Amino acid sequence: MREGDERMTTAYGINTIVKGVFEEVASRAREALKAEGFGILTEIDVQAKMQEKLGKELPKHVILGACNPAKAYEALTAKHDIGLLLPCNIILYEGDGVTPGSEDGTVVVAAIKPTVAMAMVGNEQLTAVAEEIEEKLTRVIAKMEMQE
Amino acid sequence: MREGDERMTTAYGINTIVKGVFEEVASRAREALKAEGFGILTEIDVQAKMQEKLGKELPKHVILGACNPAKAYEALTAKHDIGLLLPCNIILYEGDGVTPGSEDGTVVVAAIKPTVAMAMVGNEQLTAVAEEIEEKLTRVIAKMEMQE
Repeated sequence: MREGDERMTTAYGINTIVKGVFEEVASRAREALKAEGFGILTEIDVQAKMQEKLGKELPKHVILGACNPAKAYEALTAKHDIGLLLPCNIILYEGDGVTPGSEDGTVVVAAIKPTVAMAMVGNEQLTAVAEEIEEKLTRVIAKMEMQE
Repeated sequence: MREGDERMTTAYGINTIVKGVFEEVASRAREALKAEGFGILTEIDVQAKMQEKLGKELPKHVILGACNPAKAYEALTAKHDIGLLLPCNIILYEGDGVTPGSEDGTVVVAAIKPTVAMAMVGNEQLTAVAEEIEEKLTRVIAKMEMQE
């Protein structure tokens, strides 16, 4: 899908809605992250976890924790406590009929805006790192909108 | 150690410094989180990862991703994109001689303040959940300061 008008940003995220099968979209997201230099350090299967812990049914939903090692090192040496804000999350969930445009057969993909979190820290070096990472994550989201 | 004056907060974290061996302090932190109803969904060994990816030496450092399933479910149903801000991080790293009071033989322990992140979302239900979680995390940090 290449409909720029589907891209939305919130105060803390860069979002898009993609047509496709959940697992295939998730696989494309992992590849797009790797192509931008991110390792995926964590992956939470939110649907499975909620089923296991609470017996609750949710649409398919994963949280990927992505990290660019060199930039993370730079951030950690500038501010030891920055791990509180790492890794950067990318979430994917099946169209829920609530998010505008997210009907059945769609997947919502969103990335955190690291500049917002890093603004709290108020460290110029970190702000520069956050801007670089946000550009990379924005390209990841843009790539998700392209036709395969 | 039970020195209240060692507790510090930053704009986004609740911090303390604990005397002890890193692995033992980390083990106590995991127990304290479980006692407050958190599952530990992710664990990143920052020291090992930086060594593996960059060949860089860092003091011992882990990022625990903690989640209270019932509260996470409440947050996710109130706001589908809230996974961008989950799980709640607790970090531990060996005394670095930079953070005030963190000499050798100490471990810095810090928890994210969920109220700060959730304030960006501007949803009253989420603010209430964030306050509950922040109370739990504050008790976890307080417990770390108690003598064993």
